[in-house]
Amino acid sequence: MRKILVLGAGKSSTSLIQYLQDHAEKFNWQLSICEQNARATRKKFPGATVIAFDINNSEKSKKLIREADLIISMLPAFLHVKVAEMCAEYGKDLLTASYLTDEIKNLDARFKSNNAMCIMEMGLDPGIDHMSAMKVLDRIKNDGNRLLEFETFTGGLLADNNEKDNPWQYKFTWNPRNVVMAGTGNVKFIQRGRYKYIPYHKLFSRTEIIHIPGYGYFEGYANRDSLKYLDLYNLKGIKTLYRGTLRRPGFCKAWDIFVQIGATDDTYKMEKVDKMTHRQFINSFLSYNPGDSIELKLAHYMNLGMESDEMYKLKWSGIFSEELVGLDEGTPAQILEHILKKKWSMDANDKDMIVMWHKFDYKAGDRKKQIQAHMVVTGDDEVNTAMSKSVGFPLAIAAKLILENKITLPGVHIPTEKEIYEPVLNELESMGFEFSERETLS
Amino acid sequence: MRKILVLGAGKSSTSLIQYLQDHAEKFNWQLSICEQNARATRKKFPGATVIAFDINNSEKSKKLIREADLIISMLPAFLHVKVAEMCAEYGKDLLTASYLTDEIKNLDARFKSNNAMCIMEMGLDPGIDHMSAMKVLDRIKNDGNRLLEFETFTGGLLADNNEKDNPWQYKFTWNPRNVVMAGTGNVKFIQRGRYKYIPYHKLFSRTEIIHIPGYGYFEGYANRDSLKYLDLYNLKGIKTLYRGTLRRPGFCKAWDIFVQIGATDDTYKMEKVDKMTHRQFINSFLSYNPGDSIELKLAHYMNLGMESDEMYKLKWSGIFSEELVGLDEGTPAQILEHILKKKWSMDANDKDMIVMWHKFDYKAGDRKKQIQAHMVVTGDDEVNTAMSKSVGFPLAIAAKLILENKITLPGVHIPTEKEIYEPVLNELESMGFEFSERETLS
Repeated sequence: MRKILVLGAGKSSTSLIQYLQDHAEKFNWQLSICEQNARATRKKFPGATVIAFDINNSEKSKKLIREADLIISMLPAFLHVKVAEMCAEYGKDLLTASYLTDEIKNLDARFKSNNAMCIMEMGLDPGIDHMSAMKVLDRIKNDGNRLLEFETFTGGLLADNNEKDNPWQYKFTWNPRNVVMAGTGNVKFIQRGRYKYIPYHKLFSRTEIIHIPGYGYFEGYANRDSLKYLDLYNLKGIKTLYRGTLRRPGFCKAWDIFVQIGATDDTYKMEKVDKMTHRQFINSFLSYNPGDSIELKLAHYMNLGMESDEMYKLKWSGIFSEELVGLDEGTPAQILEHILKKKWSMDANDKDMIVMWHKFDYKAGDRKKQIQAHMVVTGDDEVNTAMSKSVGFPLAIAAKLILENKITLPGVHIPTEKEIYEPVLNELESMGFEFSERETLS
Repeated sequence: MRKILVLGAGKSSTSLIQYLQDHAEKFNWQLSICEQNARATRKKFPGATVIAFDINNSEKSKKLIREADLIISMLPAFLHVKVAEMCAEYGKDLLTASYLTDEIKNLDARFKSNNAMCIMEMGLDPGIDHMSAMKVLDRIKNDGNRLLEFETFTGGLLADNNEKDNPWQYKFTWNPRNVVMAGTGNVKFIQRGRYKYIPYHKLFSRTEIIHIPGYGYFEGYANRDSLKYLDLYNLKGIKTLYRGTLRRPGFCKAWDIFVQIGATDDTYKMEKVDKMTHRQFINSFLSYNPGDSIELKLAHYMNLGMESDEMYKLKWSGIFSEELVGLDEGTPAQILEHILKKKWSMDANDKDMIVMWHKFDYKAGDRKKQIQAHMVVTGDDEVNTAMSKSVGFPLAIAAKLILENKITLPGVHIPTEKEIYEPVLNELESMGFEFSERETLS
């Protein structure tokens, strides 16, 4: 009997826990779910062992971890380091879907000396993106060919035409705060050998159009720091490296209006939020001209036609309504999130969709070739979302492979190594998480 | 014999030190200048007592402060708290021209218990702005009238038509870094009773035109947080409170291009700066289109005509040249500052100018009235600048008044109190730092 501990049973843990429950008997696992809100979790996963848990209760946490074989942490990212320290100390394997930090990287020797492994970034993005890209990148290299350019985009979206009345063709299918804050900070990438930088306030107007066979057109905007993948994927010397996020066409131009007026700012609290309406929220970013409507002031400020697609999207989202925001305080970003949730929350009829797309340009002898690969995953319903499955299944599969001793790599890792990505991708493929590839001369 | 200690003899200390030297004999002062670079300082101020000094050498610092009567700190702002702690401990009076921080505010009781005073914000802006505004605000209140709106703008500029060939009509007349970073963060103000917010990337396109009799038109952009002046000036309940910075007309539209492309960003270091030319610096913010000139790409991105005033200003400033930047590393803001210094440094023929303008709208009985007040100070030359004089003289005058026991206010202050601003403004006026007022029905 091998003991698995899942820390945190939030929305993105659903598919992970279901997979582990479904396979527990066959593989002789004892699964325990550790969660602050134990009662709700017991209701959500009938028959599961649920333990009331608070990572800050370090005595209890230590005891639980010491008695387990493998820990999967779905806690908020900043709490992983506490878990990782305990796992390193007691020689327990640890998996998370969050970005590897320097603090956790520094635990590498301690994990190794206790013959345990920690695999970070083992979800979707980061996770499946690393694995699926490295699979092709390693193949290009092993064939003796030379990579020239690499672009990769991922998006969490509403499933195709799922809501025709929603002009954004978008809802919050994962953490709303991350969507509102997306792109803040600076964007760096390398294009045809030149370093390029885009400030946040220009990001959503510098999009690319991407076509995915069978799914139509998407638009992509750049992710924060593509340059760090030069090291991570061992791609030094390539001429283009660009990572981005996918949205439906037209989304970015409308979203950019929130960015331009300052409604996504998270650095200060606004005044008198308790008495603020949606309409007043928008007006606080516009000039004082009491004779003009707020719609007209916004359209003029942003150089939009009053009947433009963008104005239609904005009106649909309710930002001009006289409804109270319903918060006592907040930053612009917190208030905007709260307003958008009223229209952008998934309901029982909604299915989400994950789209991932890679493009590899390489030289085979004298010829330039291009591989495009894409994966599209659709959610089952509003609980078993594509997001929950594609974050949870890689973690669950890795857990299984580790407990079967099919992955044995002491130390701290991300799944860019063949020993990890090959068996995980094989099993994901058998479950339908498959990439379609097409190769052309470029 | 009273002992005055000036800490720091940088560019903005020149007029302060000259005033103190000129008045030392008459008032029986012993002046010591404490400066890291003692040799250069001795050369600059012949006959002065110059002491080699490092605030981090706390034994020596304590000894110097303990033996002095009054300290004027011209050190970088973040170092003032160390000085203030020593002054509070030894009961020594302290003056600075920097913003009052919470850390220093917390020393109020200690200053009081040792019967010493600390006056912060005793320069130009902050400094003369507080004093000249409070003088009118107190008068309006004492006349039984009610303030409705208050706007105030200050600018450090090149003197009128001082360089006709410079299309910006601007050079760095004070700390270049502060000019490049001006406006970063968020802008908050209140306009006709409504709270208004402007994000940094919209700041330079939301300017006001201001006319100053005898000096023509200026444009003003908003300063960071006007709302804190509601408390500071005791203005709760007024409908408009707006603080800003003055530039020559057309400056902001051209400067905005640097903001828009991301060239004023100070949050990350750029790649391969050692080999970067001015032209490459600009290109790194533009799209990859090797067939188009960088000038054309920028004009298109920013929606400018190739022969527009803005493009002319940008070309004049040398940003398209093939010259190496000349730095080994740097953030965009650091690199932009370095490039602009090549054209924007004052030379022997340049004089600078300080312009300050206040507008007060108030109700006298049933009638609405308006007072506009302005002060213009011109520099003597590139050393005795208007900036150096208008930062240094208020400090020097306050020092004199304190040593004469004409200001006795134990504790931590800014010069919004009549006991401070009245005698200081009187003496400034006698030196020609005078506000012209005009009152109209509004």
